[in-house]
Amino acid sequence: MRSAFQDQLEQVTDDLVEMTRVVGSAMNKATQALLDADLSLAESVIEADARVDALTSDVEDRCFEIIALQQPVASDLRVVLGAMRMAGSLERMGDLAEHVAKQARMRHPRPAVPTELRETFAQMGRLAEDIVSKTGQVIASKDVTLGTDIARHDQEMDRLHRELFTIVLSPTWSHGVEAAIDVTLLSRYYERYADHAVSVTRRVVTIVTGEPYVGVTLDG
Amino acid sequence: MRSAFQDQLEQVTDDLVEMTRVVGSAMNKATQALLDADLSLAESVIEADARVDALTSDVEDRCFEIIALQQPVASDLRVVLGAMRMAGSLERMGDLAEHVAKQARMRHPRPAVPTELRETFAQMGRLAEDIVSKTGQVIASKDVTLGTDIARHDQEMDRLHRELFTIVLSPTWSHGVEAAIDVTLLSRYYERYADHAVSVTRRVVTIVTGEPYVGVTLDG
Repeated sequence: MRSAFQDQLEQVTDDLVEMTRVVGSAMNKATQALLDADLSLAESVIEADARVDALTSDVEDRCFEIIALQQPVASDLRVVLGAMRMAGSLERMGDLAEHVAKQARMRHPRPAVPTELRETFAQMGRLAEDIVSKTGQVIASKDVTLGTDIARHDQEMDRLHRELFTIVLSPTWSHGVEAAIDVTLLSRYYERYADHAVSVTRRVVTIVTGEPYVGVTLDG
Repeated sequence: MRSAFQDQLEQVTDDLVEMTRVVGSAMNKATQALLDADLSLAESVIEADARVDALTSDVEDRCFEIIALQQPVASDLRVVLGAMRMAGSLERMGDLAEHVAKQARMRHPRPAVPTELRETFAQMGRLAEDIVSKTGQVIASKDVTLGTDIARHDQEMDRLHRELFTIVLSPTWSHGVEAAIDVTLLSRYYERYADHAVSVTRRVVTIVTGEPYVGVTLDG
């Protein structure tokens, strides 16, 4: 027979998977808004962040109740505390998607990204989509072998981020200081979105394997 | 008679206050390293971040034990979970001090900050010092009236951050794209350091007053 603990934990897992879908959709739309200078799409992403915040609160409240009522210990307690932290990381991924959308809105009707960097951001958007989709699968299936794919995507994101610096600082950069700052900040949002996804995956790995959690170097 | 729960919680509080001292010292030295282009000081900050990470692990382990062994419920459980999150915010503040130090190291022997912005960063450093010191007092004393001071300092930090954008984007900016990106990123590190400190203070307010936690808009 399933315990109340297991039932409640399954609900938390479902909520976390739903969060990956919501923050994945948010980043996907934010990228499109950025590339198309689409104001209404950008605004829809900004409005939808309240949904991410509400889901985060739900997960946190549910975890609180599980701890208070079921009083899990040892590995069960680690699972619940791990879920609370995953919700925190996913909430920040939602914030980062919102930041991308706000940048698109701020520069509208001009595009925030010069033509020569459109493909870089399109690639970053695709990587973000892949990473968050696989993160959802890891949470749902506990198949931690997907962590290898996610780490590879994250490295590719880091490479694009470094490459962007080279482009912006090259003598051929003709878009001035403001555009340079815009694309640098944008690129960091994508890079950190990926970092947070890696952090979520590592939490799952810790829970599944019992290995200690290895932190991702995040930018605060 | 004091309970084991209270004794253990006091130890956690002491650790959190110690963390504010360590991350305060780190940001203070990072600012000095930045202003003096002092490589060895920058490196000492980067090395010392391991101490912050170790303190974070200690607090998290201690909180885990308290929950597993004392099985607190209701407000007691909220206090312990709040402490875990404060440790997470303080860890990120340590990371941000490390980022400032790394920027100083990367540009050494050149200063990362042009002369005309030295006073801005000196002010940001002083604000960061004030904020983290008062955050430590709030944690130790539960005197949440200090929250007003902290919020005021945080607003001043935001003002400096916005002012910096104006300077960097003005036609008189003569330091090129790289320096513009450097100081923008640096300024964000200070601004977010202050945001995390505000977040810690709000956690204490939630615990003391029972009012719901109001999130700080962090950049992911």
